Amino acid sequence: MEHGGAGERRSVMVNGYDGDPGPGMPEETRSLIERRSRVLGAPYRLFYRDPVHVIGGSRAHLFGPSGEDYLDAYNNVPAVGHGNPRVADAVARQAAALNTHTRYVTSGLVEYAERLTAKFPAPLEQAIFACSGSEAVDLAVRIARRATGGDGIIVTRNAYHGTTAAAAELSPSLGPGNAIPSRVAVIDVPDPVRGPGGAAAADACAAAVREAIAGFAARGIGFAGMIVDSVLSSDGVLLDPAGFLARAAEVVRAAGGVYIADEVQPGFGRTGAWWGFARHGSIESPFVPDLVVLGKPMGNGIPISAVVGPSALFDGFGAEVRYFNTFGGNPVSVAAASAVLDEIEDRDLVSSAARVGGALLAGIRSLAADAARGGGSARIADARGAGMFLGVEFVDPDSGVEPDAAAALAVVNGLRERRILVSASGMHENVLKIRPPLVFDDADAERFLDGFAAVLRELG
Amino acid sequence: MEHGGAGERRSVMVNGYDGDPGPGMPEETRSLIERRSRVLGAPYRLFYRDPVHVIGGSRAHLFGPSGEDYLDAYNNVPAVGHGNPRVADAVARQAAALNTHTRYVTSGLVEYAERLTAKFPAPLEQAIFACSGSEAVDLAVRIARRATGGDGIIVTRNAYHGTTAAAAELSPSLGPGNAIPSRVAVIDVPDPVRGPGGAAAADACAAAVREAIAGFAARGIGFAGMIVDSVLSSDGVLLDPAGFLARAAEVVRAAGGVYIADEVQPGFGRTGAWWGFARHGSIESPFVPDLVVLGKPMGNGIPISAVVGPSALFDGFGAEVRYFNTFGGNPVSVAAASAVLDEIEDRDLVSSAARVGGALLAGIRSLAADAARGGGSARIADARGAGMFLGVEFVDPDSGVEPDAAAALAVVNGLRERRILVSASGMHENVLKIRPPLVFDDADAERFLDGFAAVLRELG
Repeated sequence: MEHGGAGERRSVMVNGYDGDPGPGMPEETRSLIERRSRVLGAPYRLFYRDPVHVIGGSRAHLFGPSGEDYLDAYNNVPAVGHGNPRVADAVARQAAALNTHTRYVTSGLVEYAERLTAKFPAPLEQAIFACSGSEAVDLAVRIARRATGGDGIIVTRNAYHGTTAAAAELSPSLGPGNAIPSRVAVIDVPDPVRGPGGAAAADACAAAVREAIAGFAARGIGFAGMIVDSVLSSDGVLLDPAGFLARAAEVVRAAGGVYIADEVQPGFGRTGAWWGFARHGSIESPFVPDLVVLGKPMGNGIPISAVVGPSALFDGFGAEVRYFNTFGGNPVSVAAASAVLDEIEDRDLVSSAARVGGALLAGIRSLAADAARGGGSARIADARGAGMFLGVEFVDPDSGVEPDAAAALAVVNGLRERRILVSASGMHENVLKIRPPLVFDDADAERFLDGFAAVLRELG
Repeated sequence: MEHGGAGERRSVMVNGYDGDPGPGMPEETRSLIERRSRVLGAPYRLFYRDPVHVIGGSRAHLFGPSGEDYLDAYNNVPAVGHGNPRVADAVARQAAALNTHTRYVTSGLVEYAERLTAKFPAPLEQAIFACSGSEAVDLAVRIARRATGGDGIIVTRNAYHGTTAAAAELSPSLGPGNAIPSRVAVIDVPDPVRGPGGAAAADACAAAVREAIAGFAARGIGFAGMIVDSVLSSDGVLLDPAGFLARAAEVVRAAGGVYIADEVQPGFGRTGAWWGFARHGSIESPFVPDLVVLGKPMGNGIPISAVVGPSALFDGFGAEVRYFNTFGGNPVSVAAASAVLDEIEDRDLVSSAARVGGALLAGIRSLAADAARGGGSARIADARGAGMFLGVEFVDPDSGVEPDAAAALAVVNGLRERRILVSASGMHENVLKIRPPLVFDDADAERFLDGFAAVLRELG
């Protein structure tokens, strides 16, 4: 556990374009990038050594200006598919009819809120809508701080929770230019390659939470709670041991804190279950967070996010604080979100995520084993996944544990040359992040595996 | 100037529904409100003694379930009209084609950013997109703090700048439950009814800014800058004396601070000029803020917002901080925003706002004078406006200065009974806030004035 700006953080973006167009870039793309860098502020960064220019999309495919077909194995926002017709129709109809704020009575908002909260275990029975995951994180943390009277929040080592000032404070992955104040404690999490596994990993994480809470007390900072992405995406897609987050949450609650599940990435079926936190409980002993934050895939790209929680936590906040989000829960965003639920349900995309994601993981593991056996080297230390959220961890083959960010980046760019889109993440930027739209199908998985096999061969 | 939670602030919402449905409420609406209060968190509040149930809208009109036609004289978000067909078409087309983030090369984002920044004076030449005004305020303040190394921000007495933790800190209008920390200083602003006018008011405001800056120094807090809504909407629509904000900004800059114009409400033509800050400069001596924050009407309700500023301020931030907003600048929101610019330009809505807004103000002033002369009392101390942003201030007729929030609220509810929608604002909640969609036309103004005359007669 540490705090106050220390720690191994970096400022560079994994998989960022370096500004050198290279000889193969079409003139149209090159010119657009030049104009883009003039008019958009410095924070704007493109992905890949050779940036991707897109003009359209369908299902898990993106299309370039000359009709190039990219396989999207990265984007979790267009969960029900790029250009999804049902979402587009719902948005079109609602935008032509009415789009206003929530201080008038409208039916769509209420119907959607009922439908959404019905997907959560009690007492997660109410929703507050916002526009982005960042806004929802910011709100959830405000609610936790107000409920506890404390300020101290625990986050994971390489967490990312958003872009508002309050959310950036909770995001050590943003690098050394982003100060982590003393009211935020950063803890280590299970490392599937270098750490102990199983019960020992869960014990270590629970101990780290206790230590962080003691650290707040020692510094005179009240304890508010903990926020964790249920699949620890920016930490490198850390899924095991199942149950370790429930253990951590017990420690948080015993100390009077609020446990917030950041489901912005794992939510809405991605892990093969409706919510990523479910993985850390069981039927006999379900894991129920105190607050849940939703975002990214919720409206298939139309901005909408939410905090779901118990009235017990919302009532106090609502009584003391006036919170009104102009665009939050607007009818168009809600229409998009309703269409997303329709698509997930009618096309059974939760099961599909489990099935196709499972096949993809098995295929990757098989290729990794082949590469290790067949004269290639054991560069892949671990391939892990839950549904359509996969992490493939690259290491130096000699040590077997030393992170190899260069190999991960080479695979990212090698796949991009084959028009297959992924990126990398993790503390050491050595974990391939594979997180396709939920409509990614068997043929898509096959194309991915062919490309991945070829890139592994090139890597040697 | 004061800080740290002191001050005359209140927690109740102006014009909030008290939860009592009253005998006339249709069963459908009553039932929807009941379901709504079960499933939406406590922060959700409805407008009016008798809440308004809407199912559709067109131009400056909203429609109830039985076809009731409400005249919308309040909503600045649907600036180019409820259900605007051009916006709906643009959104429909883009949603069916592609909606992704800004780390791929797309043309719409660049074209819109060029078009938007061209509407600002140099050096406001770059844009960073976000989802809500709150996110944009949060970002602008982060940029100002990073650029100056200071933390101290000056805001106006009853300012409202948004809902994120950092924006709420800047919003004393949120009431006593919303703590204002010592790094935020609150200053008085010109009071058109009780204060001095003209140069004396501008002098007093400049002096208050100097005092606030000295206060930061005395408390050991570095100075970062000042953020002001260019029409001071929540302060009660304070427009005069023109130039007082430019004077305040001079003081801010002389002390090394960043002046942020919050154009979330006045921007995009509302004041009869493209930007509200223009009012505080002249052709010979234009007033150019350091950063500008945009939101509400930008996408006619589709969530989009922006910070516009000079590369000099964005470069430093972009180099040190990784900022990426998943939905910020997404193609669908950008398509909506482009259609809004098309509509404002092609229908000349900036001029229309000046003309129709001017006529509305003249009509209100005439009715107020009639009421005062014709045996009615001088309840209206001031009626002011810039384009389609009007404030009508109610006072106790005997004192001529004592704020009369009850009268303002009676007018709000009296108009609502006539299906004309406005609300109230200001430090004392006694200022009628009239802020219709920019497409509000002469017939709409006539209907408004008829209703307003009737309500004034009732008020006596």
